[in-house]
Amino acid sequence: MARKRRMMILTEGRLGIFTAKTATCLVRYCADEVACILDSKAARAGKPLEELIGVGAGLPIVSTVAEGLTHKPTQLVIGIAPVGGALPASWRKIILQCIDAGMDVVSGLHHILGEDEEFAKAAKRRKVRIWDVRESPADVSVAQDRLRDLPQRRIALVGSDCNMGKMVTSVELDRGLRAAGYDSEFIATGQTGIMIAGSGIAIDHVISDFVNGAIEQLCWERRKRQVVIVEGQGSVYHPAYSGVTVGMLHGSMPHAIVYQHVPNRTHIYHYEKFPLMPVKAGIQLVEALTAAIYPSKVIAVSLNTFGMTDADADRAAKKLEDETGLPAEDPIRHGSAKLVRAAADALGLKPAQKRARASR
Amino acid sequence: MARKRRMMILTEGRLGIFTAKTATCLVRYCADEVACILDSKAARAGKPLEELIGVGAGLPIVSTVAEGLTHKPTQLVIGIAPVGGALPASWRKIILQCIDAGMDVVSGLHHILGEDEEFAKAAKRRKVRIWDVRESPADVSVAQDRLRDLPQRRIALVGSDCNMGKMVTSVELDRGLRAAGYDSEFIATGQTGIMIAGSGIAIDHVISDFVNGAIEQLCWERRKRQVVIVEGQGSVYHPAYSGVTVGMLHGSMPHAIVYQHVPNRTHIYHYEKFPLMPVKAGIQLVEALTAAIYPSKVIAVSLNTFGMTDADADRAAKKLEDETGLPAEDPIRHGSAKLVRAAADALGLKPAQKRARASR
Repeated sequence: MARKRRMMILTEGRLGIFTAKTATCLVRYCADEVACILDSKAARAGKPLEELIGVGAGLPIVSTVAEGLTHKPTQLVIGIAPVGGALPASWRKIILQCIDAGMDVVSGLHHILGEDEEFAKAAKRRKVRIWDVRESPADVSVAQDRLRDLPQRRIALVGSDCNMGKMVTSVELDRGLRAAGYDSEFIATGQTGIMIAGSGIAIDHVISDFVNGAIEQLCWERRKRQVVIVEGQGSVYHPAYSGVTVGMLHGSMPHAIVYQHVPNRTHIYHYEKFPLMPVKAGIQLVEALTAAIYPSKVIAVSLNTFGMTDADADRAAKKLEDETGLPAEDPIRHGSAKLVRAAADALGLKPAQKRARASR
Repeated sequence: MARKRRMMILTEGRLGIFTAKTATCLVRYCADEVACILDSKAARAGKPLEELIGVGAGLPIVSTVAEGLTHKPTQLVIGIAPVGGALPASWRKIILQCIDAGMDVVSGLHHILGEDEEFAKAAKRRKVRIWDVRESPADVSVAQDRLRDLPQRRIALVGSDCNMGKMVTSVELDRGLRAAGYDSEFIATGQTGIMIAGSGIAIDHVISDFVNGAIEQLCWERRKRQVVIVEGQGSVYHPAYSGVTVGMLHGSMPHAIVYQHVPNRTHIYHYEKFPLMPVKAGIQLVEALTAAIYPSKVIAVSLNTFGMTDADADRAAKKLEDETGLPAEDPIRHGSAKLVRAAADALGLKPAQKRARASR
């Protein structure tokens, strides 16, 4: 994907760190590609963006498409999910206005915009692209054991639950490895990650038979990379998404695994009758699963300590280090130094190799 | 589905126990609904059906649609999968002839016949139904923890590999339980099972996010049943299909699990670099996975000893019983008495309940 995009991100009425996760992450990781945020309610409130989502200092919030156009966006990105799944009438109008203005449209909704007759017709007329990032590529298939002998090293993320920050950890670890001179790439498996990376497969939308194969394909396409970080989804014991998680874990044949956790969460998000496993037991289950087909160890615990005090966050990290014997840190709060070191050590990335890559 | 169907089963040139699994199972379990087998090569060879697939004494093999029509079929069932996935030209002609004769068409192919313009048009003209059993129903969704408190008891099948006879075991166990007076139902999750049962969901074709939810839905729809047997797919450590398997196992929240195994298989079918786990270790992994969210025990090992001598099959069963401490038998060779007893014991099916059900 050409890196000339300038995104206008739609968050209409829901601009916040929990209500507009896609918008927040795009601002965090692609701030220089964000033209503006479109949210009439937030624009009226007049607060600066960084006060609402913690990042994005200086980026404008606009209240209409016309106002947004003055910031020269090239694409409209849907930065939130509508409640109930149906497309609100006001969004429909905004999307059509943007298409008429010659902008591409990027969406991670289950409602496939490219199959919406009105949008498809308008896009064809204006020769713009509608990119439904959740749609699977036509060529995904079953896993074929293509990764076994590649020199590429792979790190998989897996968590004790959904919605814990695995994508953020993946991006931070990738950036940390690259900053340290390694030839790393982040592999996106969810909508937001795909919008950040500009490529990837929304694994939860793939036909179940092809989950392991889709991950294999993403790794195979990047086989020249020294290291890839595979964004994880869910948990191996999630009551609704365990299938997706286990398929991804096996399909990626990882050499190392990072385990994601939220210290103050006790039960599966939205499934309150299912307690989280103790981290150590969760790690053992993950390792038992990979042992069967491509043995791999969890090498670090990545934490999401959002909302905790610094002291509590530090205590939680220390406690998990004592319990698991593994390094633990929150890459946003503490930085990713421990994760990067654990990954480089576990994968045996050689300084010589590192220098050779860095000097290209 | 009305039980008046009379199937003409297409196996063109591939009529055999391994090459036409769907046909073989339909004949085994729905012989009184089979009108004839359509296979010009087998018809020319002139051997009786039971010599070719072990079952089906007395059922005719015909060489043309015209000849088949004399047996008054109501539907054409595609009983094999074409090599490479494309539809052979000769099949296209046969399918159109059957539609023109007013027959429904039932297919488990990945190639969706109902979306084929020529077939769709012909079917509409003749007002017949094309049933692509692999297509998911529109209303599948994510799992919602609806099974937890049902009185219904659930048995899940899981194997050490794909293609081992889990569907056959499910049907045999269901029949055994019903013969013993329990109110049992077999839940089909693959094409052949769906054709036998007349309902079900081809779980490998569902969007990955919905695997756990699709199984939950199938169980929920049968919540009045005393016992359901959920046909399994794959293995929790299968390099390509583990995601499907684990999602099914968690989605069904089983009270008991039957583990399927082929004693003389050493490696994953088609994935020869992946050894099978020892049965006992495989059972431990399955139990570790369910322990996390809905604890369940493996209660018996079901064997597929096809091709072994009676003495070898008996020895293999005995060996597994010694290793695992569980009853083990091949329901085709040995009958399903041990499986039925293990299930009734583990699920605590009460004789009173049994009598009450049996007397309805």
